[in-house]
Amino acid sequence: MMKRLLQIIFAVIVVTQTATVATAEEKKAPLKYVDALDFRMINKGFDDTETPYTRLPKYLQDSVRADLWNRQQCSSGLGIRFSTNSTRVGVRYTLLWDTHMFHMADTGLKGTDLYILTDDGRWEYVNTNRPIANDKKECEKVFVENLDGKAHEFLIYLPLYDGVTKMDIAVDSLAKIEKPKVDSPRKSKKIVMYGTSILQGGCSTRTGMVATNMIQRDLNCEVVNLGFSGEGKMDQCIARAMARIKDADVYVLDPVPNCTEMMCDTLTYDFVKTLRELRPNVPIVMVEGPMYTYAKYDSFFKSYLPKKNAAYRKNYEKLVADGYKNIYYVTSEGLTGDDNEGTVDGIHFTDIGFRRYADKLIPVLKPLLEK
Amino acid sequence: MMKRLLQIIFAVIVVTQTATVATAEEKKAPLKYVDALDFRMINKGFDDTETPYTRLPKYLQDSVRADLWNRQQCSSGLGIRFSTNSTRVGVRYTLLWDTHMFHMADTGLKGTDLYILTDDGRWEYVNTNRPIANDKKECEKVFVENLDGKAHEFLIYLPLYDGVTKMDIAVDSLAKIEKPKVDSPRKSKKIVMYGTSILQGGCSTRTGMVATNMIQRDLNCEVVNLGFSGEGKMDQCIARAMARIKDADVYVLDPVPNCTEMMCDTLTYDFVKTLRELRPNVPIVMVEGPMYTYAKYDSFFKSYLPKKNAAYRKNYEKLVADGYKNIYYVTSEGLTGDDNEGTVDGIHFTDIGFRRYADKLIPVLKPLLEK
Repeated sequence: MMKRLLQIIFAVIVVTQTATVATAEEKKAPLKYVDALDFRMINKGFDDTETPYTRLPKYLQDSVRADLWNRQQCSSGLGIRFSTNSTRVGVRYTLLWDTHMFHMADTGLKGTDLYILTDDGRWEYVNTNRPIANDKKECEKVFVENLDGKAHEFLIYLPLYDGVTKMDIAVDSLAKIEKPKVDSPRKSKKIVMYGTSILQGGCSTRTGMVATNMIQRDLNCEVVNLGFSGEGKMDQCIARAMARIKDADVYVLDPVPNCTEMMCDTLTYDFVKTLRELRPNVPIVMVEGPMYTYAKYDSFFKSYLPKKNAAYRKNYEKLVADGYKNIYYVTSEGLTGDDNEGTVDGIHFTDIGFRRYADKLIPVLKPLLEK
Repeated sequence: MMKRLLQIIFAVIVVTQTATVATAEEKKAPLKYVDALDFRMINKGFDDTETPYTRLPKYLQDSVRADLWNRQQCSSGLGIRFSTNSTRVGVRYTLLWDTHMFHMADTGLKGTDLYILTDDGRWEYVNTNRPIANDKKECEKVFVENLDGKAHEFLIYLPLYDGVTKMDIAVDSLAKIEKPKVDSPRKSKKIVMYGTSILQGGCSTRTGMVATNMIQRDLNCEVVNLGFSGEGKMDQCIARAMARIKDADVYVLDPVPNCTEMMCDTLTYDFVKTLRELRPNVPIVMVEGPMYTYAKYDSFFKSYLPKKNAAYRKNYEKLVADGYKNIYYVTSEGLTGDDNEGTVDGIHFTDIGFRRYADKLIPVLKPLLEK
């Protein structure tokens, strides 16, 4: 009870901690709520998912482990694009679980971010909701008020470590809200990234700061997030499913953190081979697992992590030697920078880590995307 | 119940999500626990606090608002320095509240970070605990195992948005653990920083990433964190208390986000004057409030925040015109970078925001510190 009380006190403190100011317009007109699915969903890999907000095709449910199925229910990477001239832009959505983790802010885990397209074509962050759900697991937030009333292009990113069952966009009742008028991210360019909890978004502070979403904004393309916490284990059925994404321009594989040395040794070759043979012309980028920061001081992991990467690399080299083309390799060097400061727990990236990871991958991906 | 179950499932997933590997040494010897107070506490402003882990002098309790008193109970910025040759280093501590916020990871809010001093004299991050408290509000974590068994210098940062009532350091039962042998951060150099929730640490992902602790590592000095969430309101008694820190080499004032335009206008002059007159020779650095990222698109706040800064600046200029010396001013320009990506909610800094804020202040502070 005391704990709950303190939580409420803190929430109130933080909400009101900036100087309280009465805005000119005290009485607001009611908002109108429009189904997010009326607009454009971005960064989605498959159209045959169980719900619009889940990530893997429905047919896979019986083929994969329950944990993997659970993780694909997280809406990581998905975003809604729309255009409106509203002076207010908000969101209301229902969470699948309303879960919590100890090393990731709820804003990243189950919040949503609003971005706006600037006049010079950059996506710029506006605001985030604090995901305080009611007893129906509903979160609601007006991201911004007092906008200029001109038509702007917007993007809302969905939760990274929770799912969404329903989402509405909130705007002024008399405002226009429409499908986006600008093709950004470009519909014609798509990167598909497969990996672990790190790739899924653990532990960015908010949804716009996961690497896949940064890359999506920076390269003006769609980036499908197929990161599955604890479950990036190079299952053959996932390779086959990824090959079904017909408009994929580049595949990125980043599974090492979830695989043992033995798995890196025995699964890598066949996973890449399956994908390569089904999609002969699409570049594949293999990314090594990062050296966990704590491993630098732990003699066991200091030798074990390079062994996993070595097993992964050996298979890359074997694939190349066997004549498989168009496969690229990114080493772990500097993947989260060189100061050991890019993680929250020695493993999972913070916004700093994700920024550095994106900055390492972008120069590799950009030329492949424009081929 | 379902929610709690999912929380547990997620916690387990995340803990075990890296490949499970049996270390060579299956059976560990028991740890020994040593009171953290036996070593060196850093970044503390006052020695007459109610407990070693709180921040303001006890005598102030009746003079300040209850909320301000509550906030000084957070151990923000405090750290424990020690030396050990243990192959394992851990921590066990009891939280004051075990609270939670929606826009900050628990690791930053109530976790602890372990840093190690490298051979070339840099402080390097090792690991963080996930603050999963038992029913006694106790958290426990072995940060690192399999260290090399040589003597190293360590630093543990305390929670930013919670308090600590008791802390023990855990090491191998036969290891030596002693007071630090290296004077880092230098005892002879101290910066005292006063401000709001942002300064207190909202919302770094872990305790080492709040700006005051970054500045402390980068400038090799102590940095006292007097950030009080919602309560950085330029109270006269705080100015007088700050003047009592006799070994302060620089004062930094960053209260604007918690003050209205009127408060910036009416409180700034007297706050600085009190501090200046009581400590005539210590440089004072006044930092403007950041332009909230959402304010860029909100016509009300877009004009209101500059008004607060203008009121603050006007008083700085009046102080200088009135002959008060050794006062420096840092504008809000680029305080969290120029891409709008440095906050978690449009206001509170992420690790990226704190890094940029520290990078803006360090060139100002460094020459003042070495005077």
